[in-house]
Amino acid sequence: MNDVLDFINVNRDRYVDELKEYLAIPSISALPQHSPDVRRAADWTAQALRNAGMQSVKVIETPGHPAVFGEWLGAPGKPTILFYGHYDVQPVDPVNLWTSPPFEATVRDGEIYARGAADDKGQVFMHIKAIEAFMKKTGGLPVNMKVLIEGEEEVGSEHLDDFIRAHKAELAADVVVISDSPMFDRGIPSICYGLRGLIYFQLDVRGTKTDLHSGSFGGAVANPAFVLAQMLAQMKDRGGRIKIPGFYDAVRPLSDAERAEWKKLPFNETRYRKELGAPRLFGESGYTTLERVWARPTFEVNGLQSGFTGDGAKTVLPAVSMAKVSMRLVPDQDPDTIADLFERYVKKVCPATVELSVTRMHGGKPWMTEFDNKYVRAAGRAIEAGFGRAPVFNREGGSIPVVSTFQEELGVPSVLFGVGLPDENAHAPDEKLDLGNFHNGILASAHLYQEIAIVD
Amino acid sequence: MNDVLDFINVNRDRYVDELKEYLAIPSISALPQHSPDVRRAADWTAQALRNAGMQSVKVIETPGHPAVFGEWLGAPGKPTILFYGHYDVQPVDPVNLWTSPPFEATVRDGEIYARGAADDKGQVFMHIKAIEAFMKKTGGLPVNMKVLIEGEEEVGSEHLDDFIRAHKAELAADVVVISDSPMFDRGIPSICYGLRGLIYFQLDVRGTKTDLHSGSFGGAVANPAFVLAQMLAQMKDRGGRIKIPGFYDAVRPLSDAERAEWKKLPFNETRYRKELGAPRLFGESGYTTLERVWARPTFEVNGLQSGFTGDGAKTVLPAVSMAKVSMRLVPDQDPDTIADLFERYVKKVCPATVELSVTRMHGGKPWMTEFDNKYVRAAGRAIEAGFGRAPVFNREGGSIPVVSTFQEELGVPSVLFGVGLPDENAHAPDEKLDLGNFHNGILASAHLYQEIAIVD
Repeated sequence: MNDVLDFINVNRDRYVDELKEYLAIPSISALPQHSPDVRRAADWTAQALRNAGMQSVKVIETPGHPAVFGEWLGAPGKPTILFYGHYDVQPVDPVNLWTSPPFEATVRDGEIYARGAADDKGQVFMHIKAIEAFMKKTGGLPVNMKVLIEGEEEVGSEHLDDFIRAHKAELAADVVVISDSPMFDRGIPSICYGLRGLIYFQLDVRGTKTDLHSGSFGGAVANPAFVLAQMLAQMKDRGGRIKIPGFYDAVRPLSDAERAEWKKLPFNETRYRKELGAPRLFGESGYTTLERVWARPTFEVNGLQSGFTGDGAKTVLPAVSMAKVSMRLVPDQDPDTIADLFERYVKKVCPATVELSVTRMHGGKPWMTEFDNKYVRAAGRAIEAGFGRAPVFNREGGSIPVVSTFQEELGVPSVLFGVGLPDENAHAPDEKLDLGNFHNGILASAHLYQEIAIVD
Repeated sequence: MNDVLDFINVNRDRYVDELKEYLAIPSISALPQHSPDVRRAADWTAQALRNAGMQSVKVIETPGHPAVFGEWLGAPGKPTILFYGHYDVQPVDPVNLWTSPPFEATVRDGEIYARGAADDKGQVFMHIKAIEAFMKKTGGLPVNMKVLIEGEEEVGSEHLDDFIRAHKAELAADVVVISDSPMFDRGIPSICYGLRGLIYFQLDVRGTKTDLHSGSFGGAVANPAFVLAQMLAQMKDRGGRIKIPGFYDAVRPLSDAERAEWKKLPFNETRYRKELGAPRLFGESGYTTLERVWARPTFEVNGLQSGFTGDGAKTVLPAVSMAKVSMRLVPDQDPDTIADLFERYVKKVCPATVELSVTRMHGGKPWMTEFDNKYVRAAGRAIEAGFGRAPVFNREGGSIPVVSTFQEELGVPSVLFGVGLPDENAHAPDEKLDLGNFHNGILASAHLYQEIAIVD
């Protein structure tokens, strides 16, 4: 084991150089023009797995972007890890807000800046390098390993559930390991035991056949941009509570014990607010910030578009308006049920003066697990060995819908061990990954395989 | 006079060819990248005036886009007309909704389609051709004529008031003639005796320093797109009434007489609705459609922008949101007063969780006149001669702020005689001008100069 750790320490700089190459591929799964880049990233991922010593590595077609799979089953009698991650990334707009180009990874102050640095190429690569170190120094791994790296996580993993159902035997494992979440805070590694779910919609409102002169016609017809604002405003009350009837019915209340645990976490609300640059924090009445983000559902507007948005003034009555909206869900909200409730409500609040089209986009279930199973305990020891500090246990506001699928379809629990930071700017300009955490993450990954190998 | 009219009839096709050339210049005053085109249109206008026989024609610099001025003062003892129009045009986006390219004028079914066809190059050119016909056939005009064609009407005529104040003597006249409005309906020429005013704003809302992951941070901070929707929704109630305190205080109520006159106009609400493609008409409770457009103020959203608006889904919490909003004003609302009221109210309804920036853009006063003065009567006779039907008298929902300035600064009344049609798509894709109306408009313009020459 010491040889493996030494190898990792010695190769630290090479890992960063290789990661830069991975981050240079603009594998934006949401944008059709980037499909060839997405495929290039799949091929790159497959080759990196082969170079690391994984076997039977293949790029597998799906109806959307391909998935990458590889395995190494040379440890009979030992547990099997299924490592899951994704090689696709978020769009980069507004690109003018990036300090350095999003696909030219740049190191500043010990952080590597690029789209995908934290979410999720950097964290995927961390495991590939831990595997490589074992292979090079010991000729194998202490556990059996399967690796599934998909290319559609940032667009809702649309074809992943079908893929998992179609490859149940191939994917069979004892535990799923995922590194696609931030740690609790700088210097405070964590294991995540709960995730929010998601539903995402596009709303299109049409008022008239064409844009109109706001003087000649203003006052005679409904303005679809104003109507959209009116509709959105009816989604939440002033206290931040969502007004969709039935929305909260299935929400599992926070237990007093969990609230008490979270109150002990070293969370600095003032620092948090300042780092975000928000004049004030704001959320649902009656909950703390961590509770709002980890354990309460949300309704958010992700995008708005209507009429004239260039410089200057154009006196136009827009013909159409568009909003992207999404809801984060918590246990035990069901995405399909909530989507139905939303659709019914938004149609109800839409006046008859306009035409409304509601498009359901991707979604995923919320997830929560016990945090004292043997794999979680193994991960706790590995993280302590890699980072020099025992992890705290947290939930995460984001969504990794596949975690529910692994549980439901394969009956396999997941361990979520992420090394990003809360200010890593995933999904925003200047995404970054701390290179110290990246390095410690490779060490911790190696420890994790070793710890799972000897799990009772 | 018959020679003049014959000349106009004979040259009908040539006028269309020349107009096409004028319409090919993309003189979009709102977009800085089109500044050279705006200047090119100014030069083209000046040359067309010179070709028509106008004298002392010059392109005059302003702090913004230049104005074009020319005069012919060879009718001592006769009244002086100041013709006002504009050679700048609206932006053309969304350009994909145009049937033919906006700056390649195309004739279909007797209509010429191009940006500026109706608003206002086509109507300006109509007068230039009437002048030309007189000059060619009679060696002069029956009246003294001054022509002022500006290049900033579509961006609020920002420098025009100063220009008029600085050139009072040069601009002195007995009556202002403007052709920059639609006629009442196809086959129903009209004279416009009232215009709405305008104020235009941009609202910028900032929630956080950068865009954020809607999972990791959703619930902890205000969403600027949602806050903007909430703020906008508070501008009007369900009945379409504007909620800005004091907004209606100075509104001159519609007289029973005016309401009665308008009820007699041949307005087909069903056809109007169908032509606009609106599921239903909608406006302020208690008023008819014509009353809403001509005599009641509005609050409209002209543009919305926030977050992710591309194809697909991006789970982003936007950092910022933007709205363009404007209000049409009616007599006796004062733009500055209303702008102050709006600014105070919008700041009041903006929560402390975001930063709001309010930018005042252009504005203009509403205008209304008596419609039985001698110039209006002269215009009525001219229109009847040109179109074969006496005009009706209407107000217009649009704004031509300079009309108030001519009244206040020069003490000169205006006659608004427009030949566009209500479905001419000014400010929208597929702007057009009926070539029959264009031709009759040239005849009516010639008659107008003759009628004003012999006014009491």
